[in-house]
Amino acid sequence: MGGDHGPRVVIPAALDVIKNYPNLHLILVGDEARIEQELAKHAVKAHSQLTIHHTTQQVLMDESPAFALRSKRDSSMRVAINLVKEQKAHACVSAGNTGALMAIARFVLKTLPGIDRPAIVYPMPINVDQKKMGRMRMLDLGANVDCEAEHLFQFAVMGSILAQGVDNIPKPKVGLLNIGSEAIKGSEAVKKAAQLLEESGLNYVGFVEGTNMYQGVADVVVCDGFVGNVALKCSEGVADMLIRTIKRAFTDGWYARFAAFIALPVLKKIAARAEPSQYNGATFLGLNGIVIKSHGNAEKDSYKHAILEAIVEVTHNIPERIRVEVEKTLGARKRAQNV
Amino acid sequence: MGGDHGPRVVIPAALDVIKNYPNLHLILVGDEARIEQELAKHAVKAHSQLTIHHTTQQVLMDESPAFALRSKRDSSMRVAINLVKEQKAHACVSAGNTGALMAIARFVLKTLPGIDRPAIVYPMPINVDQKKMGRMRMLDLGANVDCEAEHLFQFAVMGSILAQGVDNIPKPKVGLLNIGSEAIKGSEAVKKAAQLLEESGLNYVGFVEGTNMYQGVADVVVCDGFVGNVALKCSEGVADMLIRTIKRAFTDGWYARFAAFIALPVLKKIAARAEPSQYNGATFLGLNGIVIKSHGNAEKDSYKHAILEAIVEVTHNIPERIRVEVEKTLGARKRAQNV
Repeated sequence: MGGDHGPRVVIPAALDVIKNYPNLHLILVGDEARIEQELAKHAVKAHSQLTIHHTTQQVLMDESPAFALRSKRDSSMRVAINLVKEQKAHACVSAGNTGALMAIARFVLKTLPGIDRPAIVYPMPINVDQKKMGRMRMLDLGANVDCEAEHLFQFAVMGSILAQGVDNIPKPKVGLLNIGSEAIKGSEAVKKAAQLLEESGLNYVGFVEGTNMYQGVADVVVCDGFVGNVALKCSEGVADMLIRTIKRAFTDGWYARFAAFIALPVLKKIAARAEPSQYNGATFLGLNGIVIKSHGNAEKDSYKHAILEAIVEVTHNIPERIRVEVEKTLGARKRAQNV
Repeated sequence: MGGDHGPRVVIPAALDVIKNYPNLHLILVGDEARIEQELAKHAVKAHSQLTIHHTTQQVLMDESPAFALRSKRDSSMRVAINLVKEQKAHACVSAGNTGALMAIARFVLKTLPGIDRPAIVYPMPINVDQKKMGRMRMLDLGANVDCEAEHLFQFAVMGSILAQGVDNIPKPKVGLLNIGSEAIKGSEAVKKAAQLLEESGLNYVGFVEGTNMYQGVADVVVCDGFVGNVALKCSEGVADMLIRTIKRAFTDGWYARFAAFIALPVLKKIAARAEPSQYNGATFLGLNGIVIKSHGNAEKDSYKHAILEAIVEVTHNIPERIRVEVEKTLGARKRAQNV
């Protein structure tokens, strides 16, 4: 029910995805009447891969997480997460209020043993080399404002497992986001986290910066939630500004429009590569269950990517892999400390 | 002598700028023989607007600020800042080691009364509206890792004066960089700084995010040095990635190259608008004197912008304006607190 568009986007995205995944079953959680109305628009009355789970409430986009947690027990968001908890669903996908989704997920599902705080992680585009684009995972992107070294270390362990499982990288390169100025070499937390990472079994590649981060120096980039959120939003802001500049230039005058017509196949190729929709689907990592957050303003194609992210994380059983790995890593560290 | 290119870039930039500013006098501080050699390449032996100030040392790009401060007393960097201190120069422009330049500038020039820490501020491009691009000032970009609310407040006061003087905005809109997630509304320092700014006489417009920052919601964006440096570098990283993607697409195959040929005037227009060289020249704000840091890898046109930034800051006497304003603002606040 959430996001800027609600069922208008979620339903057609769901209908598209089930076509390609015949074994997938989607539970549409929300107001039954509105869901049926939306399904009817697509000439669907009932479908063997779809179930409607009716709820009477909805978490609004500007509601406080505390209020949503306390007063919206029959909201689509809360009920969807309950279904994960009750193992009636393998994952929850939502485009709703991020803070409320995180608060409810954390309250209902709890964090995995050894993990203090869940983190928000996002697939981001990178330039692998002259020819290819790829993706890396950055975390935390806003769940935790003030992080200590230990939290950054846990993010690194979790991000590494996600990249291993979902992105199929055997030994993901893990970088710590820092600033390169000579004057100061990062905050205390970052310096300490670097030490923890050097002593870990992770493939730690050292400090990375915003500039080389996009050139693919790491598969996983670790930072606190404030810094990560600023990095993400600034990146979106600049990309948006550049794309507007390009659009403006290609519509300014008859010659520009003619050039745009000639260059259309090339511009389409650029748009396809830079297409933000393929990067939709943030994972709430570190919980006892899979929760994927779609961008609030996601359109159909973009929302589909959030569902696909959920499918692949279910397939790789990410929470269980984190549980096992964290036990191993943190266990080894604790034993080493005791020696 | 510093930067990636040294005199090879500085000398031709200097020669270009003095042509347009007949009242400008530039003191070229560094190794006399190398400077003369470079001038000779441009068929210049002596020029009434140029003086060479010979120095025997040079701060290297990877030297620690402490070492540079202690052991490089006859470096081009140290001597140039000394000239500002001795009022023999109105400003210092350098492409050298940022940390060393900041440490030496702070040691030699000292901060203005009422200013605890100097900040690095940079002009950044923004989309003013559908048609126009503009610029805003962001600070701090890396001089101070851990900032308290009071420091952020001082940055806001200084940035506002810079935007008033240099960018000719009577009441600059001042925003505080924060994250938008519902879960958490920023760090303690940011929350407290917001309170200080609300009570100030500044044109405070509230929290801004990386996304709307580039849409021109503020003329001055305030943040701590860690966050600011990450924001700047990520922005550069994304812009670079997008530009590479575009270049690649327009050279991939004969049709793409043909389209590039047809679209050349449009692509040139885009390049001119997105041109990073016009955004060169970071100001070390809050010092008893004007120090401008050029990007280390600046080429001639870019370095010229750093010199122009120095000229306009001298013309508007920015440090003196800050001194007066800080006394007024902080004085008023102290009086209000005592009442």
